[in-house]
Parts: sequence; C-alpha cells; structure tokens
Amino acid sequence: MKDNLQADPASPSILDSLSLSHGKRTRLWRMLYGHGPRNGTLLVLPLDQGLEHGPTDFFPHPPALDPSYQFELAEAGGFSAIALGIGLAEKYMGRHAGRVPLILKLNGKTNIPSDAEATSPLFASVEDAVRLGADAVGYTMYVGSPRQHDEIRQFEQVRRDCERYGMPLVMWSYPRGAAIEAKGGKNSLYAQDYAARVALELGADIVKLHEPVAERGKSPAPYDTLDEDAAARSARVVRSAGRTMVLFSGGEKNDDDDAVLRKVEFYMQSGANGVMFGRNMWLRPFDQAVALVRQVHEIMRRYPR
Amino acid sequence: MKDNLQADPASPSILDSLSLSHGKRTRLWRMLYGHGPRNGTLLVLPLDQGLEHGPTDFFPHPPALDPSYQFELAEAGGFSAIALGIGLAEKYMGRHAGRVPLILKLNGKTNIPSDAEATSPLFASVEDAVRLGADAVGYTMYVGSPRQHDEIRQFEQVRRDCERYGMPLVMWSYPRGAAIEAKGGKNSLYAQDYAARVALELGADIVKLHEPVAERGKSPAPYDTLDEDAAARSARVVRSAGRTMVLFSGGEKNDDDDAVLRKVEFYMQSGANGVMFGRNMWLRPFDQAVALVRQVHEIMRRYPR
Amino acid sequence: MKDNLQADPASPSILDSLSLSHGKRTRLWRMLYGHGPRNGTLLVLPLDQGLEHGPTDFFPHPPALDPSYQFELAEAGGFSAIALGIGLAEKYMGRHAGRVPLILKLNGKTNIPSDAEATSPLFASVEDAVRLGADAVGYTMYVGSPRQHDEIRQFEQVRRDCERYGMPLVMWSYPRGAAIEAKGGKNSLYAQDYAARVALELGADIVKLHEPVAERGKSPAPYDTLDEDAAARSARVVRSAGRTMVLFSGGEKNDDDDAVLRKVEFYMQSGANGVMFGRNMWLRPFDQAVALVRQVHEIMRRYPR
Amino acid sequence: MKDNLQADPASPSILDSLSLSHGKRTRLWRMLYGHGPRNGTLLVLPLDQGLEHGPTDFFPHPPALDPSYQFELAEAGGFSAIALGIGLAEKYMGRHAGRVPLILKLNGKTNIPSDAEATSPLFASVEDAVRLGADAVGYTMYVGSPRQHDEIRQFEQVRRDCERYGMPLVMWSYPRGAAIEAKGGKNSLYAQDYAARVALELGADIVKLHEPVAERGKSPAPYDTLDEDAAARSARVVRSAGRTMVLFSGGEKNDDDDAVLRKVEFYMQSGANGVMFGRNMWLRPFDQAVALVRQVHEIMRRYPR
Amino acid sequence: MKDNLQADPASPSILDSLSLSHGKRTRLWRMLYGHGPRNGTLLVLPLDQGLEHGPTDFFPHPPALDPSYQFELAEAGGFSAIALGIGLAEKYMGRHAGRVPLILKLNGKTNIPSDAEATSPLFASVEDAVRLGADAVGYTMYVGSPRQHDEIRQFEQVRRDCERYGMPLVMWSYPRGAAIEAKGGKNSLYAQDYAARVALELGADIVKLHEPVAERGKSPAPYDTLDEDAAARSARVVRSAGRTMVLFSGGEKNDDDDAVLRKVEFYMQSGANGVMFGRNMWLRPFDQAVALVRQVHEIMRRYPR
Repeated sequence: MKDNLQADPASPSILDSLSLSHGKRTRLWRMLYGHGPRNGTLLVLPLDQGLEHGPTDFFPHPPALDPSYQFELAEAGGFSAIALGIGLAEKYMGRHAGRVPLILKLNGKTNIPSDAEATSPLFASVEDAVRLGADAVGYTMYVGSPRQHDEIRQFEQVRRDCERYGMPLVMWSYPRGAAIEAKGGKNSLYAQDYAARVALELGADIVKLHEPVAERGKSPAPYDTLDEDAAARSARVVRSAGRTMVLFSGGEKNDDDDAVLRKVEFYMQSGANGVMFGRNMWLRPFDQAVALVRQVHEIMRRYPR
Repeated sequence: MKDNLQADPASPSILDSLSLSHGKRTRLWRMLYGHGPRNGTLLVLPLDQGLEHGPTDFFPHPPALDPSYQFELAEAGGFSAIALGIGLAEKYMGRHAGRVPLILKLNGKTNIPSDAEATSPLFASVEDAVRLGADAVGYTMYVGSPRQHDEIRQFEQVRRDCERYGMPLVMWSYPRGAAIEAKGGKNSLYAQDYAARVALELGADIVKLHEPVAERGKSPAPYDTLDEDAAARSARVVRSAGRTMVLFSGGEKNDDDDAVLRKVEFYMQSGANGVMFGRNMWLRPFDQAVALVRQVHEIMRRYPR
Repeated sequence: MKDNLQADPASPSILDSLSLSHGKRTRLWRMLYGHGPRNGTLLVLPLDQGLEHGPTDFFPHPPALDPSYQFELAEAGGFSAIALGIGLAEKYMGRHAGRVPLILKLNGKTNIPSDAEATSPLFASVEDAVRLGADAVGYTMYVGSPRQHDEIRQFEQVRRDCERYGMPLVMWSYPRGAAIEAKGGKNSLYAQDYAARVALELGADIVKLHEPVAERGKSPAPYDTLDEDAAARSARVVRSAGRTMVLFSGGEKNDDDDAVLRKVEFYMQSGANGVMFGRNMWLRPFDQAVALVRQVHEIMRRYPR
Repeated sequence: MKDNLQADPASPSILDSLSLSHGKRTRLWRMLYGHGPRNGTLLVLPLDQGLEHGPTDFFPHPPALDPSYQFELAEAGGFSAIALGIGLAEKYMGRHAGRVPLILKLNGKTNIPSDAEATSPLFASVEDAVRLGADAVGYTMYVGSPRQHDEIRQFEQVRRDCERYGMPLVMWSYPRGAAIEAKGGKNSLYAQDYAARVALELGADIVKLHEPVAERGKSPAPYDTLDEDAAARSARVVRSAGRTMVLFSGGEKNDDDDAVLRKVEFYMQSGANGVMFGRNMWLRPFDQAVALVRQVHEIMRRYPR
Repeated sequence: MKDNLQADPASPSILDSLSLSHGKRTRLWRMLYGHGPRNGTLLVLPLDQGLEHGPTDFFPHPPALDPSYQFELAEAGGFSAIALGIGLAEKYMGRHAGRVPLILKLNGKTNIPSDAEATSPLFASVEDAVRLGADAVGYTMYVGSPRQHDEIRQFEQVRRDCERYGMPLVMWSYPRGAAIEAKGGKNSLYAQDYAARVALELGADIVKLHEPVAERGKSPAPYDTLDEDAAARSARVVRSAGRTMVLFSGGEKNDDDDAVLRKVEFYMQSGANGVMFGRNMWLRPFDQAVALVRQVHEIMRRYPR
C-alpha cells in the first residue's frame, strides 16, 4: 500500500473537534492518518471470533485458523489496525509490531452459555496495551443486559486507565440480553440507536455498531412507527453517536465481492468513520482478500473525515 | 443574561447555616450566586436522558440530539449549571468551560432491563469531576430498590471522595423497584417524602426530587389517610429534606409555556431551592427556550435563599 | 444538668475490667463519666428513624422532623450521647459539637424492601467519626439474616478501623430475616439472647438490644420450654452479653411518662448499662421531654456501674 | 500441671518432617512442647459455641456462659491452647495472656439460617492474632458447600497472611451444605475423609475433624461398599490428612467420664495428634473438669508425636 | 534417567517462535530441555485428584495416598514436572526441590456440589510459586460455565502476575457446566476444540486438554456433521491451540501398559507437545510405573519439538 499518500497535516481533521490529551491524539492520528486509508477513516481487521464463537468461524477457510494469516493480511492489506486479544497479540504480533497498529481487545467470553444475562469479563488491561505498543483498546459492552451494572462498572475501570495513559477506547457496543430480545432484538434500529448513544455518553472514542434493521413489532415507541429506509437508519445511529466515531461491522461472510464493496460505500455514505470487517476479509483466499481490501481503500478515500 | 446583578456578598446566605469546607462552599457559591439567578436559587439543565432513556427523548426536537444544543442553551439561558456525564462533558464542553458550571453525573444505566431491581453503576469518578473543573457531582440513588445495599455502598465511595475534594454532591433521589411499586409507586407523597429524608440522612448537599402526587390506595400509614393538597405535599418533602437543598424535576415536556412557568412558581413557593428542567427546555426551539428561561429567571429572582 | 456531680476518678469503674487502648478508654470515659448520668451508665438519644423508617415516625410530633430538635434535646436533657448518621451530623451538629458526645451510625437502609434478606450497608466510615470528633460509632448487625456473611464481613472492616483509631463500637444487634421469623421472631428471648452473645463474640464494646419477650411456640430448645418472667429474661440477655455493655431500646412511643420511667428502672435492675430512648423522648413536647429525662437521670443515678 | 516435664529438645519431633518458617515452628513448638501434654500432642479447649450455636450450649452448666470460666479451666487444666474469637479474646484473656496459648478463630456465623449454602465470614484477621500474641489462627471451611468458592477464596487470604507472619493455621474442616447431605451427611466416612484431604491440599497445618461414622446408603463409591470398623475409619482419615496434624472433636457432652477418656484413647490410637474437647470439658463442674483433663493428659502422654 | 542426553542448545526450539520474557523462557527451557525427555516435549505428573475428587482416586493403590509417592515417582521417572497445589508442595517437596520442576496449581475445588455452575477458586498465588521455586503455575478454567465471567476475571489476575514474574502459565482448559452438557458434553470435539482456542486467546503458554470424542447428536454446527477419525480430531484441537503447547490428559487408569503407550504415541502423533498422566502412573506399583515411564520417554524422544 505504498501508493497511499501521507495525510496533509494542514488539512482539518475530525480530531480537531475533540479536546484530546497528547497520548490519545497521537495514537488516534496513527490509526486515522498514519495507516489504512490515511484520510481520517478507519479500516479495522478484527480477530476475536475464536474466543467469542469458537473455532467454528474458521471452518469455511481453514488457513484463517492460524492467527498469522490475519496478521499477514492486516499488513498486506494496509489496514488501519488489527483488533485482537492478549493471547494472540503476545504470540503472533512478532515482526508485525509497528507495521500495523494494534487494538487490544480487553474483554470477551465464549458463546457457550446463553446470552440472556450476557456479561464480558476483562482478561487483559490497559497496561498490557501500553506494554504491547497498542494504539487503542477494545471493550465490549452488552448494552441493556440484566448485568449492565457489572458491565458499566468494569468499563469505568478501563475508561479511567485510558484517561491515565492517553489510550483511545473503542467500544463494541452490543445490545444483548433477554430484555433487548423482548424489545425487538439486538439489531433493531431501537437497539443500535440506543447502543450508539450509550457509547457517546459513557465516553468511548470510537464505537463499533451493526447496521440497524427495520423492526416494528416489538420496538418501543417511537421506533415502532418509524418508517425509515436503510440509509436513513444508518445515518440516524451515526448521528446518535455524536462525536464518537462510528465503525460498522461487516458481520457474516458474503461471498459476493461487489456486495461487500457496496456495503462499505453504504456505510461511508451514512457518515460512519469506517468499517470493521473480519470474516468478510480473512475467510477469503489471501490474494483475493488483498485485492478486495484495495478496492475498499478506493472507496474509503472518497470519504475523508 | 448580563442583566443579572452580582449577589450582595454581605446578605445572609443559605450556605451560612451549613458547616462547609472551603472547597464545597466555593463551588456551591459559584452555582448559587455566580451563575443562574444569582440569589441562592438553582436553575439546572440536565442532559442524561440519552443514556437513561435512549435517543427516544430527542425525537420531538431533533436538534437536541446534538449535545452542543444543550451547552449553547445552558450558556445563552444563564443556567446555574448543566448536568451531564463524562462522555458528553469530555467531547462537548470545549469553549463552554468556565461559562457554565458543570455538574458531572457519575452513575447511570439504560432503561432496557426492568427497574424491579434497579441499580445505577458508576461510570465516572469525583476525580474526573475535579479534572474537568466541575462544581458538583450528581449521583442517582434508587431509594428502596432491592439492591439498595449496592446503591448505598457505592454512594459511600462517592461521598467520601466529595469530602476529600470539597465537591458538592447532588443526589437524584429516585424511589424505584418492586417494593416501592407495591407501596404506591415512585411519585407518591410517601415515596418522595422518604426519598427527601434519605438524601438528608446520607449526606447529599442538594437533592433532586419529583413533585409528589396524591396516592392513598397502597401508601403505608400515615400517608394512606393524609389529605393534603399539592402545595402542602411539595412543602412537606422540602421540609423532610431539611438542610439539603431541594430541586424539583421538570419531568416530561409540557408545550404550554405558561404551565411551565406556573410550575416553577409553584415549586419555589414550596420552599425548594430551584428546579432542574431538561426536556421542558431543550425540546423547545432555541429562541423560544431562551425566552422561556428568561421568564423563569424572573420568577426565581423573587425567591432569594 | 449542671447539678450532675463529677464522677469520682478514684472509684472503681466498669472500664477497669477491660483491656482498653487509650483511645477507647478516653472516649468511653467521656460518655460514661463525662456526660449523661456520669456514673458509668449511658443514656443515649438515637435519631436514625428517618432513614430506617422514613419521615413516618415524625408525624406524631412534627417539630421532631427538624434534626435541630433532637440536638437541642440531647444537650438540654444531658444525654450521654446522641446517635445519628453522617448527613445529620454534618449539617446539624454545629454549635452542639463538644457539648454532647456523638455516636456516628455508620450503616443503615430504608424499610421499603422486605426484611427477609435484610442487610445494612455502610454509608460512612470510622474515619468520618474521627474527623467529626465522635466518641463512638454505631453499627447495625442483622443477626441471623440470610445475608449474615455480608453483614459480618462488613462489620470486620469497621471493627478493624475502630481498633486502629481507638474508637468504641456500639452494635445495634438486631435479629432479622426469614429464618429468625420462623424461629419465633426478632424479639423473642431466643433471638435477643443470641443477639447479645453475637455482639460479645464479634467484639462490640456496647450492644443495643430490645427487651426480650416470651415466645414458646416456635423458639428452638431449650427456649421453647423456658418459663422465665420479664425480669429474668432481661437479666439473662445482659448476662449473655458478658463484658459488652447493654443498652435497652425504648421502642415505640408510650404516652404514659410513668410507664417510661418504670421501664428505665426495670432495665437498670436487669443489669443493663443504660438505655437508648428516641421516640419516647423526642416525640414529646420539648419541656415535657426535658422534665422526663431529668427523672430518668434520677433513676439511673441509683445504678452506678 | 507443674508435674509436666519439659520436652526433650533432642528427641525427634513431628515438626522435623515439615519445612517450617521460624515463626510457624516457634509457635507450633509452644503448643506442642511448651504447653499441654508437651509431647507433640495437642489438647485444645474451644469456645466458639456461643456464636455458632447461641447461648443454648451453656444452659446445662450456666457458669460456662461467662468466658472467664473457660480461661480459668484452660489454665488450670494445662491445655495446649484455648480457641476462641476476637471479642472473647479481647475482653477476657487479660491475666491469662502467656499462660495459655491462644488459637484465634477468624471466621464464624450463627446457625439461624439454614446450612444448605453455609459460608463462614471472617470477623478478625491474622494481624489481630499477631497483635494478641496468638500461637495460631483457626479457620472454618465448609467443605463441599455450594459457596465453596467464597470459602476457598477467603481462606486464601488467611493462608497468605499466615505465610507472611509465620502463623500456624488450624482448619475446622467441616463438610456442610445440601450436596453433602445428599451424599450421606457431614459425618460420614466419605465426608470426613474428603475433609481431611482438603485440609492437606489447601495447606492447613492442623485440621479439626469429627469422628467418621459408617454410612453406606448414600455415600459415593467406593465408600458405599466399604466395611471398616470405627478404628479403621478414624485411622483412614488421619492418613488422608497426611502431614497435616489431626485433632478430633469431642462433640456433644457425654456425662460419662470414662466414655470421654475411652474416646480420647481411641482418637490417639487412630494416629491423631490430639483432641479438641469443649463441651465435654467446660460443661462439667470446674474441679471435675480439671480432674478429667488430668486423666486426659495421662492418656495423651502415652502417645508422643 | 541419567541416560537422557543434554538438549543441543543450537538446534531450533519451539520457544524460538515465541516472544518470551527472560523469566518465561528460562523456566520453560528447564521443563522442556532440562528435565523429562529433554527434547521440547513435556511429561507431567499431576496430583490434584485428592482435592478435585477426594481420596477416592487413591483406593485402587493405597500407597499413592501419601504424596511422597508421587514425588518419588516424579524424580525416579524423570518427569518434566510435577503439578500439585500449595499444601502438598509446602509439606512434601522437601529434598525433591530442584530435582523435579514444580507446576504449582493455583485454583481448585471439590466435586461435592454439582458442576452445573462450576467455578474454581484460587487458593494460592503466583507469588507462592515464585517463593517455592516453581517453573510454572497451573490454572483450571471451566470453559463455558455460567460463571465464566468469574473464571475469566480471576484468570486475568493470574495472567498479569505471570507476566510480572516471568512465570509460565499452564491452563487446564476444561469445558464444564450445564450449557456444555446441553451441547454435547465436555469431551466432545466441539468442546475440546473450543477449549483449545480459549487457552490460546486468553494467553496460556501450555494447555491441558482431553482427547476429543465423536459426538454429533447435540454438538453445534459444523461439528454435528463432521466425520473425522480420532487422529484427525486430536490433530484439530492441537491446531486450534496454535502456539499454545498442548498436553493431553491420561484420564482414568488403564491397566494395560501397552494401551497406555499406544495412547502416548497417538497423542504425540497428533502434534501435541506432551502428556499429563497421573492415575495411569501413580496407581501402578512403583517399579512398574518407573518401567512404564521409561517406555514413555522412548516414545516421546521420537517426537522432538
């Protein structure tokens, strides 16, 4: 990705609207302008599925079971960052260190027990992220879970440490639990819109969301009578996130490259700051994935932030 | 609001009856006499609805979804303080810092799960408030919740830090949970009167309450046989709060400006120290809201404390 | 109460049988010999009902809603100490500081949820007591509650801090919870006798108990077959408390002054170290209360310890 | 008990097989060779029944309600140690300090709620034991309780502090809870044998056990088919405890002195290091108890360790 | 086992692919190349069954009840390490210290209560391991238990301390709990494959697994349609563990020596780094066990890592 131009340091940046500490600004700059599309957008490669879903997710493309595959892809594809946990970072980052920014995911869980009372425990710390040279930490918040009090209290620890170390905080803001299921499900506009605002109010710098879907049967008012198309729905959640930058999730693998590219374009048009595509990248053969990510770059370059 | 006169430093103040540390007195003085009506009363603009209720509350007036709206309004309207959480304070206070006092809300939750066992976890600290230059912290206490032991223990941490840093403590004293519902509901005179006393006994400097409503069916004795009008009810809870200053909540939006003003007058007549009006302010068009708040100032100036 | 004589420093004291640190001895001395009857007995005025029961308890005598009433009464009546929480102490002690010893109650709760799993969270610390110049701290232990493990662990923190600061510890030893109800109720001889011993074994310096009542239907052996009169029952729990000094509770208000005085005499005859009378004092008109407390002093002076 | 000879410092000791810190060795030596039978055996007088069972246990012999009784008996009877909690130690040890070693019991509970989920909270610390000059601490572990995770985590704190201060750790290893009841009960060979091994594996220096009884109906294999007599059963649990010294419990009072002595002999023959007899000692008239304990000494002297 | 050759320090080692701190590398080298087969493989003798299962497991071979038996065997058999808890290490390591590396198991529980919500509390610390000269710590993780949040949070403490002290971390990664039972059981390929990945993602250096069995009835997709033989299944879980070294468990005792040896060969062929055989070793007569372990060495030497 040597064809990427350096960001013009004189042009206005999304970072200028925020009062950031030196540490946070430095690290965000690295991801927004020093790597990836380098225009204030973010293209992140996540690899937490092995813990969250088990090895199941790697079956369609067995080479992806080896975390080296994702590290190679993150570097070859010029991603803004790779997002994964302490075990994978410690054992596989090796020579990739410095070449691709690291978002260290701090909490996680298996999907073996039910998600009715989902909660995601910490298994690494902001100090680990500092030690590993990470440019951000990732935190999964199960918005609306019956255990939200545990979730939020634990988040507070992380936020405080991020403040102390100048570490950007990326929230995986995931509606989850029995109550959200009863109110229209985790991907409804109601759920995603709330999740976006929670990330903003709790102090996330970046939030990962899913594309909101239309749901009227069980969503609370006024969402139950809202008649918005997909573009309006996505733009709405981006607005609700305010100055917290939004990344949309790629979700399950789509074999159709054009569909993936249309989705990226759609997300960028909604005002999002970028995308976090995992399975849609690393479940492809390597060269095909690299080719696809180059096309993603092309699109994202048209949406500087 | 340049037409506000400076407070007369020689006149007696509500603060004189309290043994306050220098820090608490300084910060309370700033809100009571340095901003807002400047006569010992308090006019607070809250913005925690995005977390507590989701973006739902902003639908009637979409510009209010952008927290800049509330900051502009707090400044243009000459509010005594704006009350919101760490995420909004960090990202939007910017140039408003110093122009309008900040009450940093420290805990909160979504309303997605049931409130039967409501508890409100901390997501920021008194140290954050100090760092941000806040003049008070806000703490929501779910009075009578089955989890009151968690609520109270967590409050104790906050109170202790407030003591340490000379930070005034505003309690959102909210009866909540299955037991209070069985005893007449959260807005009954019984519930609000108890909530007022809890704030006093636990050591809040200021308490936010709701206007108590008549309820006799399920309220415990002697409230079940009490026959008091609205004025007597509100005056009663103000008395129960003792030397803890009372702010009454504006609650849901009322489109009728005169009704809003009558409510302010009613609250001030009850002996309250002020009001906390959010949706009744920021769900109005900006100029209309500023005009309304000027009229609120007129009323409050007639009730110096 | 200037007619109180100074305690004779050469006479033997109940304190001589205990190995007390300088701090504990100094503070206990102040309450036992420097205030109140000044003969080793204790006459304590409690004011925690606003938190524990709500403003309900003040309805029979509205002036008592203002905590200044109790402070005035404690001083005018020459009480050994006033017992209340941090909020009331901070806001109302003012000029009474030094004139009447303070027992700072450290934990408490509302009675809104059921007591089946009662637990009483801390809302102030021993350090607060030191800072406020208190001569003791109060701790409510719900003996036999299903949450007794939380109760006891929390008590341990307090006891340790009391040890560190030389602060006497008064335990409100209250049988409570579903199990005690099933075994004859909280005021049975079985329950009060057990509560007395718990206070002794856990290390309380002073214990507040209720007068034990006869109960044979559900009390465990051997209490179910015990046939003791009221005097024997009260003497028994005093013995079970060993070297932990016993205060008996006044309980609900009795309008008959003579009955109140007979109760005081009865308690002192049982071997108790004193009484803790709240509602029976501050629900009376001020002058009547002061007159009554003078008669209480007369009685207590006949039972030096 | 002046007729006790000093231990011969040159003879081999049970302590030689253990790698003990200076502190642990010193304190164990004091109990094993400096007090009691002085031959490596242990004769301990426990007094925790007031907390664990209530004053009930003292009814058969009222003088025993006064903890001075047990201290006098421990000294007059030449016990190796007295085992009790912080409240009793603080208020009654007085002049007995140094004359009889103290085992400070650190945790406890009432028996008012059901034991189905039994857990025993700490109410004193190893630091308290150091401050009081104790030669060991006591910890009750409810083996197999549904709350064993809380039990074990709390034990870990104690063990760590014991390591730090060189304080011997005596575990009251008590099978308890719904699961153990379903598998044959707390006194079955299965239960006691498991409890012995738990004490060894978790790191207790000394374990208090109950005599295992035959139970085949519900005990898990291979205990359900085991046909061992009482001697074999007791010897088995002593073996399972390995290098953790075993004390057998005296249990409920037996009025027959000879039966008590036969029990002591039986326990010593099983390989135990000693006995912990409370009610069988202090529920006897003082002189009778002292006479009995002298006979116990005679027996134990025949089983040097 | 003097016939073991020294490892050739110049040959490539499995450790070279990992970025290890000096401490971790030193301690892993000691187990991989300084003891046991000395070729990068691991042969570990575990002794935690007394706590996890009770003395039951020792009935087939009573001498094994004495932990000295296992220490003698570990030394005589030239094991790479012995794995046991703090109680056994403190009391039995003695003269074996230095002769056989120690893996100190930090958590454990009894199997008395149901495993539906299994959780394994810490009863020792990484600091203990350092103090005892251990070369690794062991941690049991109940993968997929409803209490996985407690499990993972506790693991995080251990991992952080391991990082601090350079202590290798061996995870007993055990699927457990009601949810895993509903999805095909703890030994299914689905369960073991997930457990392997969890160990990798959470940051274990070494993982102990069980041989995965075929299960299609209740396993989630795609495992429910997978048709792999035993060799493919074991190789799969080794791959899923990535750079975390895999040890397979010996499980229950098999009296047939040849079957045991075939199992070792089978495990090594699957790509595992070694085996952890307890009952299959120490339930054999000593000389027979030593003879068997020599044959195991022969096999393992053919699979250098």
